[in-house]
Amino acid sequence: MTIESIKQLSIIKFANGHLNQAEDILAIEEPLEIALIQEGAMPFKKPVSITMRTPGKDIELATGFLFTEGIIQDPAHILKVEQLQENEVLVHLDPKLNIDLSRLDRHFYTNSSCGVCGKSSVDQLRSVRPAHLSKSTIQIEAEVLFGLNQQVRNAQSVFERTGGIHASALFDSTGKLSGIFEDVGRHNALDKLIGHAIQNLQYPLNNYLLFLSGRASFELIQKAAMAGIPVVCALGAPSSMAVELATEFNITLIGFLKNDTFNIYSVPERIVSN
Amino acid sequence: MTIESIKQLSIIKFANGHLNQAEDILAIEEPLEIALIQEGAMPFKKPVSITMRTPGKDIELATGFLFTEGIIQDPAHILKVEQLQENEVLVHLDPKLNIDLSRLDRHFYTNSSCGVCGKSSVDQLRSVRPAHLSKSTIQIEAEVLFGLNQQVRNAQSVFERTGGIHASALFDSTGKLSGIFEDVGRHNALDKLIGHAIQNLQYPLNNYLLFLSGRASFELIQKAAMAGIPVVCALGAPSSMAVELATEFNITLIGFLKNDTFNIYSVPERIVSN
Repeated sequence: MTIESIKQLSIIKFANGHLNQAEDILAIEEPLEIALIQEGAMPFKKPVSITMRTPGKDIELATGFLFTEGIIQDPAHILKVEQLQENEVLVHLDPKLNIDLSRLDRHFYTNSSCGVCGKSSVDQLRSVRPAHLSKSTIQIEAEVLFGLNQQVRNAQSVFERTGGIHASALFDSTGKLSGIFEDVGRHNALDKLIGHAIQNLQYPLNNYLLFLSGRASFELIQKAAMAGIPVVCALGAPSSMAVELATEFNITLIGFLKNDTFNIYSVPERIVSN
Repeated sequence: MTIESIKQLSIIKFANGHLNQAEDILAIEEPLEIALIQEGAMPFKKPVSITMRTPGKDIELATGFLFTEGIIQDPAHILKVEQLQENEVLVHLDPKLNIDLSRLDRHFYTNSSCGVCGKSSVDQLRSVRPAHLSKSTIQIEAEVLFGLNQQVRNAQSVFERTGGIHASALFDSTGKLSGIFEDVGRHNALDKLIGHAIQNLQYPLNNYLLFLSGRASFELIQKAAMAGIPVVCALGAPSSMAVELATEFNITLIGFLKNDTFNIYSVPERIVSN
């Protein structure tokens, strides 16, 4: 993560009964516009999203966003992602790809914690669906889960210093860290992770485990499902809709991961204990 | 908060080296559609928002949302708020109120963590602006701040049981609790609080202090500014844009409130220490 992801500033700190000047570090939150361009028979150029994100890894973010929102089904549909300005990326699509322009007519505006904006009805909130439900036969030993948080913390920088940033990380079934991304928006951290993974690893990610540093909300489960991830493990609580979606999509959902306990909310058979 | 805000379910818990069945409680996350209706010369009926929220206090939520998004400037503009169904409220507006329909043409779709969706440009993210900057001369003793979190926890039910819900609370300058609302979405918890406050207390809320159980993001600062709240105090980190907005709107922003320390990010002169 580049230095532009964080910002130093002077603050007043109250400690030991006194107000004193101090230095502090904040996570930067800035808008990013993602636009699509396609040459060919029916050329077009269109913005599809403005998201409040922590700058850095914008190309991975755009790739992951288009994929987890169902706009592209294959990383090969993206010819290249161009960073036009600090807060703008342009995604060049394969001219042979058939894009439903009416679907793009609604914009996706997302703040730093949002992954469902721009949906035009309540039903559509659940309309992003994976082509195949996860049939992964991955098995994970309970003890493996207890090592994840420390590995993430060791790999992090911004998160620990500000406490104001979310992390998404990918692990294999033995608990080996495969990738970690951070953002003020948890859905952005996950899009960056998935964008990077589909560019570099196999797809679907059905032999991997997703770690989330915060709560598990339903849009994160949707995104995990789109990438074929079979096991999602969150430090925080899941919402009721996250549990419903995980069950429907055959995803093992773990919440409240602590040093020696965790809860399994769906598809528990992938977790084994000796 | 009604019982329908939470949901009981059976889970598998790993503890003491074993997987066992257990009972757990989750915060419910469901969509709410807010629609407006106006009689008179130019009658209309229009949905303006779908938000993912924890059911309960929907009338306060709708009132607060319309106010903090700048759609109404005065609670008297609302004749009544009708709960049509579990997930739908209809707000009857004063026929004399001049509503800019083109502004409503873009929908506000918001998930459980989102407060800025539906804005049609990056500039518009910052377009919701208070009519007057806070000139509040409120003074708060540093020691008062340390009592806030425990009061909130004592008043809470769902939050402590699930860990998956956000709280917004209003206090007077001596630290006396004036109101508390909870939701899976932090912007909803704040809209419920402000909706209730403007119905029941004086407006603007320039003698009150806002407590946030999580991070301070820029859309929460915008909403606080719309309600005239001069001091915002968060348990978590602020984002860079939250600090910029708080400075611009003359709001005292406090973050990382712990048992005996806190950080002041803007307008520190309202906090006094003996």
